[in-house]
Formats: sequence, C-alpha cells, structure tokens
Amino acid sequence: MKLPDPIQRTVDALAELPSIGPRQAIRLAFHLISRGKEDIRTLAGAIDDLARIKICDRCFFAHQNSGARCGICEDKNRAQNSIMIVEKETDLLTIENTGKFNGRYLVLGSISKTGILDDSQKLRIQNLKNAIQKELHGQAIQPGSGQAEEIIIAFNPTSAGDFNASILAKDLAPFAKKISRLGRGLPTGGEVEFADDETLGSAIERRS
Amino acid sequence: MKLPDPIQRTVDALAELPSIGPRQAIRLAFHLISRGKEDIRTLAGAIDDLARIKICDRCFFAHQNSGARCGICEDKNRAQNSIMIVEKETDLLTIENTGKFNGRYLVLGSISKTGILDDSQKLRIQNLKNAIQKELHGQAIQPGSGQAEEIIIAFNPTSAGDFNASILAKDLAPFAKKISRLGRGLPTGGEVEFADDETLGSAIERRS
Repeated sequence: MKLPDPIQRTVDALAELPSIGPRQAIRLAFHLISRGKEDIRTLAGAIDDLARIKICDRCFFAHQNSGARCGICEDKNRAQNSIMIVEKETDLLTIENTGKFNGRYLVLGSISKTGILDDSQKLRIQNLKNAIQKELHGQAIQPGSGQAEEIIIAFNPTSAGDFNASILAKDLAPFAKKISRLGRGLPTGGEVEFADDETLGSAIERRS
Repeated sequence: MKLPDPIQRTVDALAELPSIGPRQAIRLAFHLISRGKEDIRTLAGAIDDLARIKICDRCFFAHQNSGARCGICEDKNRAQNSIMIVEKETDLLTIENTGKFNGRYLVLGSISKTGILDDSQKLRIQNLKNAIQKELHGQAIQPGSGQAEEIIIAFNPTSAGDFNASILAKDLAPFAKKISRLGRGLPTGGEVEFADDETLGSAIERRS
C-alpha cells in the first residue's frame, strides 16, 4: 500500500538514521501525526535549526559561537596542553559530566575495526599535530617541534578500541610527553562475582 | 555541560517520541549534524509536511485526499459491510500488504490492559456504530437498525488483546452478523518443536 507522500518522505529520512529501522520509522511518523500539528512543527523547527550548528575548527565539537571555536577550546581556564581524543560527541559530553578533566578534546569520529582512519579522521589527526607543533613549543629546542603534556586516547575498552589506540599512540608519540588511555577495572557498583575475566584481570593488575 | 540550543531542542523533541531515549536522541542529533545541512533540511522539511496529513473521518487512517475520506474508504470496489478494527495504522499497513482483505477499516488506537477505551476510542466506536446503522440498513426491518456483514477485531493475540476484543465483541454484537478475530496457529516457517504451548494448542484445535 502506498503511503501518503509526506509520510513516505519522513519514513525514508528517519530510516536513514542510525538505530532506526524502516518499521520504527513508520511508527514514528504515524505517532507524530497523532500528536498534532504543533508537535510536528516543534520537531521540524528544532531539526531545521541544527543546520545553524557549527563545528569547532580545532576539536570538531559542535557549537554556535560567533567565532570558529567551541566554548571548551575558547576557555582560557582549561589546560591547552592536555588533549583527550574521543570517538563521538556523546563521549565528550559524558566525560564533561564527570567534571574530572580540565584539558581540551579532539573528536575523531567512530573508529573502525581495521585500525585504518578515514580521510576526515586523518585530517583531524594532522590538524592536531600541526596545532601542537604551532601552539605548544614552549620547551621545544627547535621551533615547530612542540609537545603536549599528555594525550589521552579515550576509545572504548574493546578490541577495536585497543587496536586503534595502539596504532594512534605510536603515531602521536613524538607529539606528547605522555600518551595514556582511560583506566580499567571494576565499574563502581559492580560485583566481583559477576565480573568477566578480562575486567577482573585488569582490576587485579591495576590494584591501588 | 550545556548543549547548544538547537541541539537541546532537537534532543528534547526526539526524546518525547516512543522508543527513543534521551541518550539515543543526543546521538541522533549529533549524527544529523555530521550529515550536513542538506540532510538536516530534508528531514526537517519532510516532518514539517506531516502537518498537511489529514485523518479520515470514517476510519481514522492518514490520508491527503482533497475530501474527508481516505483512499480505502473512498474505494467503491471494497466491501463496505466488512470492517476490520485495528489498533494501529501500522497494523492496517501490514494487513493491506497481504492483499487478503477487501473490506474497510477502523483504526482504534492502542488498547490498554484495563479493557477500558479512552474517550477518543469510545468516539471512534460510536462513530462506527452510527455509520453501520446509517449506511448498512439494506436488510434491516426498521430504519436505523443496519448491520455489517462481519466485524473482524484484529487486535494482537495477547492477553490484553483477547480481553479488549471480548468486551468489544459484546458491545458490537448488535451491529454485525458475525464478529471474528484473526486465526491462531503456527506461524508460517515456524517449527513445531519450538512452538509455545498456547500457540501449539491453538494450532491443534484449529487444524484444517
């Protein structure tokens, strides 16, 4: 059965989003219709406004400042020589919510299992290297050979994350005094009895 | 961390949709931003156009005809005296895709476990009763006492569906010669070995 055109177009556009299948897209479209015109226009207007969002030219996080940089990169109170590399914007948000990190970020985009970065990711890493050399040459012997205090590679603690992190750590070694990853062990609130071997192994090795 | 306003508004609006949580809403918003302005505007435009969708005044399905009725209700080749009551528009679509039903529909909206219809659902049932009495009095002794040939209550084969269907069947008994439900048994492609007791029991009782 042919759906009315506005429904079909909404379904097609929604179904292209990650984790929304064609069936859920149809349900969402009909749900929106049942909510009425006002809710439809609220959502459409909010999404349309996303087109006004800019991407920071240094860390690639979203912002809507008048300049080219996001609030974190503009913040003079944040350590400029400590850089955390995250995959996704949502990883950045979760880390910011802890309040435990006062450096800046690089949003790299989702990594693949192959360990090979795509073109946009290579560009972002190159951008980071250039910025480090240009901005952080305080102790450098030659101009253009600056180093960050620390680069934290905050990929997920999965085999793909480990693999990519080890490649990236080698690549970035000349650009930071220290390259680290997020600590591993038992999650707070977890139970020893139900921890998997890998997690418990890490927790024993990194006991403190 | 405060999100830029257009992102926050999109997240809020998306998170109100069924089966989309706040976390997924954030991911979707950032994904849309990464897809670029054109994709953002395509989705926003399609959703905005949903406001132009009308609801059929007889079966309550979505349409965009110039009149008040949907294509199925307008179709003279469909049996007007055979009415299938479905919960959701998506149920109607799935049934239409089988090509096995040539009557018309009533979209009732999702039923609750209590067996009590909400006000809008009561109105839809009353609307159906009125239409049957008004339109289908071919064989009726008195004017205003018309009957449908068949009303099929196509609720899910769950305890809530069974409960609601039994109440509705009693309520609608004077308005149709026959009131039926969808057949039960083994799903095509299923395996006897793995069928649950209820399903297998139905399949044995309704063997053919």
